[in-house]
Amino acid sequence: VSGASDIATLSINTIRTLSMDGVQKANSGHPGTAMALAPVTYTLWQEVMNYDPADPLWPARDRFVLSVGHASMLLYSTLYLTGVRDIAHDKVLDTPSLTIDDLKQFRQLNSKTPGHPEYRFTAGVETTTGPLGQGCGNSVGMAIAQKWLAARYNKPGFDLFDYNVYVLCGDGDMMEGVASEAASTAGHLKLDNLLWIYDSNQISIEGSTDLAFTENVAQRFEAYGWHVQELHDANDIPALKKAIEAAKAVKDKPSFIKLTTVIGYGAPHKAGTAHAHGEPLGEEEIAGAKKAYGWPSTEPFFVPDGVMDHFKDGVGKRGAEKSAAWKELFARYTKEYPTEAAELEDIFHHRLPEGWDKAIPTYEASAKGIASRASSGEVINAVALNLPWLIGGSADLSPSTKTNLTFQGAGSFQPPQWNGTYAGRNLHFGVREHAMGSIMNGIALSGIRAYGSGFLIFSDYMKAPIRLSAIMEVPTIYIFTHDSIGVGEDGPTHQPIEQLAQLRATPGIMTIRPGDANEVAEAWRTIMPLTEKPAVLILSRQNLPTLDRTKYAPASGVSKGAYVLASCEGKPDVILMASGSEVGLVVGAYEKLTSEGVKARVVSFPSFDLFEEQSEEYRESVLPSDVIGRVAVEQAAAFGWDRYTGFGGSIVAMHTFGASAPLSALLTKFGFTPEAVYEAAKKQAARTAAK
Amino acid sequence: VSGASDIATLSINTIRTLSMDGVQKANSGHPGTAMALAPVTYTLWQEVMNYDPADPLWPARDRFVLSVGHASMLLYSTLYLTGVRDIAHDKVLDTPSLTIDDLKQFRQLNSKTPGHPEYRFTAGVETTTGPLGQGCGNSVGMAIAQKWLAARYNKPGFDLFDYNVYVLCGDGDMMEGVASEAASTAGHLKLDNLLWIYDSNQISIEGSTDLAFTENVAQRFEAYGWHVQELHDANDIPALKKAIEAAKAVKDKPSFIKLTTVIGYGAPHKAGTAHAHGEPLGEEEIAGAKKAYGWPSTEPFFVPDGVMDHFKDGVGKRGAEKSAAWKELFARYTKEYPTEAAELEDIFHHRLPEGWDKAIPTYEASAKGIASRASSGEVINAVALNLPWLIGGSADLSPSTKTNLTFQGAGSFQPPQWNGTYAGRNLHFGVREHAMGSIMNGIALSGIRAYGSGFLIFSDYMKAPIRLSAIMEVPTIYIFTHDSIGVGEDGPTHQPIEQLAQLRATPGIMTIRPGDANEVAEAWRTIMPLTEKPAVLILSRQNLPTLDRTKYAPASGVSKGAYVLASCEGKPDVILMASGSEVGLVVGAYEKLTSEGVKARVVSFPSFDLFEEQSEEYRESVLPSDVIGRVAVEQAAAFGWDRYTGFGGSIVAMHTFGASAPLSALLTKFGFTPEAVYEAAKKQAARTAAK
Repeated sequence: VSGASDIATLSINTIRTLSMDGVQKANSGHPGTAMALAPVTYTLWQEVMNYDPADPLWPARDRFVLSVGHASMLLYSTLYLTGVRDIAHDKVLDTPSLTIDDLKQFRQLNSKTPGHPEYRFTAGVETTTGPLGQGCGNSVGMAIAQKWLAARYNKPGFDLFDYNVYVLCGDGDMMEGVASEAASTAGHLKLDNLLWIYDSNQISIEGSTDLAFTENVAQRFEAYGWHVQELHDANDIPALKKAIEAAKAVKDKPSFIKLTTVIGYGAPHKAGTAHAHGEPLGEEEIAGAKKAYGWPSTEPFFVPDGVMDHFKDGVGKRGAEKSAAWKELFARYTKEYPTEAAELEDIFHHRLPEGWDKAIPTYEASAKGIASRASSGEVINAVALNLPWLIGGSADLSPSTKTNLTFQGAGSFQPPQWNGTYAGRNLHFGVREHAMGSIMNGIALSGIRAYGSGFLIFSDYMKAPIRLSAIMEVPTIYIFTHDSIGVGEDGPTHQPIEQLAQLRATPGIMTIRPGDANEVAEAWRTIMPLTEKPAVLILSRQNLPTLDRTKYAPASGVSKGAYVLASCEGKPDVILMASGSEVGLVVGAYEKLTSEGVKARVVSFPSFDLFEEQSEEYRESVLPSDVIGRVAVEQAAAFGWDRYTGFGGSIVAMHTFGASAPLSALLTKFGFTPEAVYEAAKKQAARTAAK
Repeated sequence: VSGASDIATLSINTIRTLSMDGVQKANSGHPGTAMALAPVTYTLWQEVMNYDPADPLWPARDRFVLSVGHASMLLYSTLYLTGVRDIAHDKVLDTPSLTIDDLKQFRQLNSKTPGHPEYRFTAGVETTTGPLGQGCGNSVGMAIAQKWLAARYNKPGFDLFDYNVYVLCGDGDMMEGVASEAASTAGHLKLDNLLWIYDSNQISIEGSTDLAFTENVAQRFEAYGWHVQELHDANDIPALKKAIEAAKAVKDKPSFIKLTTVIGYGAPHKAGTAHAHGEPLGEEEIAGAKKAYGWPSTEPFFVPDGVMDHFKDGVGKRGAEKSAAWKELFARYTKEYPTEAAELEDIFHHRLPEGWDKAIPTYEASAKGIASRASSGEVINAVALNLPWLIGGSADLSPSTKTNLTFQGAGSFQPPQWNGTYAGRNLHFGVREHAMGSIMNGIALSGIRAYGSGFLIFSDYMKAPIRLSAIMEVPTIYIFTHDSIGVGEDGPTHQPIEQLAQLRATPGIMTIRPGDANEVAEAWRTIMPLTEKPAVLILSRQNLPTLDRTKYAPASGVSKGAYVLASCEGKPDVILMASGSEVGLVVGAYEKLTSEGVKARVVSFPSFDLFEEQSEEYRESVLPSDVIGRVAVEQAAAFGWDRYTGFGGSIVAMHTFGASAPLSALLTKFGFTPEAVYEAAKKQAARTAAK
């Protein structure tokens, strides 16, 4: 390693050999990128980053994102060697995040070293990566969060937040559209706290990148408005450091360093080939590589004397000093700015401030009603008013999704050059749904509550980050409007059918489709306290009548996923269920049936997953097993409703794509009429009676 | 309109006014972009494109893609004015695709003028657009198809295929990652038959594009390796024409024209504002715009004398001549190259050649078995050998998905500069799943059978184009491997859970998850004859035992979606169901139960949607209603299986995300063991018996 001290070289090679050995022992994994990028990781951690291994929760730490998540051993080796401490229940422990035994358990069941870095699994992992491009998107969110925290909370003499976000990304990231979207966004926002180091190794799984990827990446990033540098030797530490310092010095632009590397650096036969990417090197190549490094031992997982001390003296010492100074600064800040400091404590500890929900409106009964996107827009403004760190926006649809914060001072999150401020709370993601999801996750990982909105159909463009919110257990909030054929004239390409089923089938997401304005308010009351779960709110384009809650059960039932709105005396012969815009339809059918003496019950069913979380007893009380007469109504795919209707039950739902027409015509075409629901219910009531 | 004749100007303004009037009458739609781009559409159709309105199926026609699908009235007006004929059942009719009455029915139920252009709905619409970026991706597929057809079928003196693909795209397309991926791919492939005209109107739904989109798009396309031009006046016809001619003259590069436009051109107050984008202009603005155009009538949908004749004399005459000459050329080609001509006739008529399936292997029973990705790799090679126009590839995963065509002469689809040939059949999509899906649709729309492969988890990145395949009813083939926690060590980010449910919930897709090698072969036999439905094949990473078909029912049952593999005499007490890698598990449990005298049945269930297509009688024969003892086993989300297990049935499935570990450890952790299935089945058998 050129320009590096002996101990630095030894440390870099320790990262390399631990990574190779971990993959070899697991007989599974990706050694090559770790071997290539060890000098970069070393330089960032040891020489550049403000990171205190003794406090991986220090709020002002620099963030390190391994977007090339398959190179997880690179990160695990670094976390081990730098002595990053473990975390449990948001507290730092005295024990290390990883031990050498953990490295030996790479990719084994219940180990702390899973195949890809998993947020919450391993202290020091800032985000879950692996699905390519996502780490890049997350990093833009983290950089946004830093800018927002700084703009809102920094005061003269109190530079509380001035951290940077460092990202290692690869050819795969560069090919993925989500990273392109994120990069364009970061350039627009002039996020000069962001540095992407692009590992250009010219190798992909199918072989040379010349098979598919021959664009000029550096020029593309210039076009996005980034500061761009190119380096040609990953082992030239002084050049690397100089480039990183230059990147840090640039104002008003994110920075990009294209670094030409050799995958599997040092491996005698596999270096520079696809064989070094996704499989163990084999004992022979490992021996050859270790020889090339001048490695002093043949023992696997060997850590030479002095290496851990070296990290202790570098990142350890610098980090400890910086974090201690920051904590002292924050103590003084707390005295001088107690309100702001209290807000920050809430942010750091994922708490809602007292009175956060006090402005949430209650809605009077109304036959005309209000679209749930509109009532949600009112509620979100009411919540945001008393929860200063709720920020969000839309993928260029806020006039339609009604998610704009409109109160005094809400503002647009923009650099001053675009006539905004980084303290603004309305984000403009552009027509970039995928990046929006990925960016929101990065903001949420930084402790700020983030929401993003769009049409439900375009959740298809951002399914990957929605899923990652759930895997990471971060409380990102997705707001999807235009939730059915209710979209009307825009037609089948814009009318969601299977999207509700998709979200319901995904573990770890709270999906709520409220049926009227008061259910919308309750949905927000249910979502906001979440600290470890993403939520998806599904809203209508069209008006929904507001139910008379003196007549029907209170909307607080939303928090149980499904609840009885109204019922007959004794056991019903038929249960009518619906969510969202169809609740009004089943309520109408219920009234007609009741007036005719049919024993009916009507259930509002805003959330499958919340309902499944309830006790067996509660579920049985809402849907008694011996009532087999059941009708579910939803303007979405029938898929999944059988769970609640059973064999022979009736599902009034969509079985095809929609069509382009005014909504009233579509309701008739697809059978969502009071008559159709009434008829289905009559038949179902007869089934129970005949049983 | 500068540099245009009076009749040209009148024709352009007719496109504009029809578009405005259509939106106004519908009281819904997007007038502004049509008004801005009318001169471009006019120039392309009237002066540039080789398109015969009398034969919209002419195989060598230039393709026009309106990626800004919301501007559908622009296309409908043009189809009407140019007199494009209607199509039914792949035949051209004597009647026009659209009449003036159809334009008046814009966005109404069952009209031929839906909100966004829908392939198959309206003759002359080459692809369904609206979801942004997809038209761009499709166009790259169309350009690939042209290159492939030319490379394979053109002969000296027979330039059968030399058509171009023209695309109108907008700011939204430019922001979407899928278009970035597609553009990078097109640049790599040097598709000089492709021209994107970028409508840069600086307006998005939230307002000025300065809110979110300030990159240098032209420079970005240069970085992708495109030829780039910039124009600043959409009404300067000679400049536009010159730029298009220059684009056509460029060899070895796709072309990009950035055209600065004014949205809602001519509208006195709304021109250049977001208000001209997605809502009717209103009578007053329409009157003002018509006045600005010097429009001779106040009557809506007015078409001045001479306009339709003008198009007849332009595109009509040129197209008729070109298409007649081509047909004469093709007649001579048929004599000189009868084999190739017969292949082309099959392509044009969506027919499979005789013997296409003759090389499909049959697999002997084997306990060790073979991964379904591997058997599929063998079958796809066997099919491709006898079906020359089956081409495809992977998003940089072909060594893992086993989709490479390995026989002599299969070759890589590459420009000569990258050491390949456009006649190659293996496509390299790079790490660009979303573009892959969109490109595949474009290839399929061109008559060539296209497949694309990846890991099932990354179907999340390409859900939008999968859905569009289904909406368009094009027989795109998706091959997804690594289909469960069987992925093992790569962990939860790479282990699909809800993806099968997502695909099953989507209308119009045939999803098949075969249980052994012979089911894989049958799956391909089922998929290949499809002409109007996309298919998704779900395959394992790990080996699956090959069932002994002398003992169990033949694999041809795959075509029915679910079939009885083996059963007891008389009525069973328990039915075991599974798909894919879990079929072996339920067969084992069945054998044990049977040996113990439990009356059991085992059902292989590769496809929900195929099963739902069967008669009530067949479904009842497989799953008799009165057998309530049921167990479904699948290493995926339980969501959706209740349909077949009913109240109280047992679903052995995933309820959380997976984990990183060797597969054997995961099977125990998540309960996919012979013992667990056996125990569940015993309980279920008791339920039926007790009934």
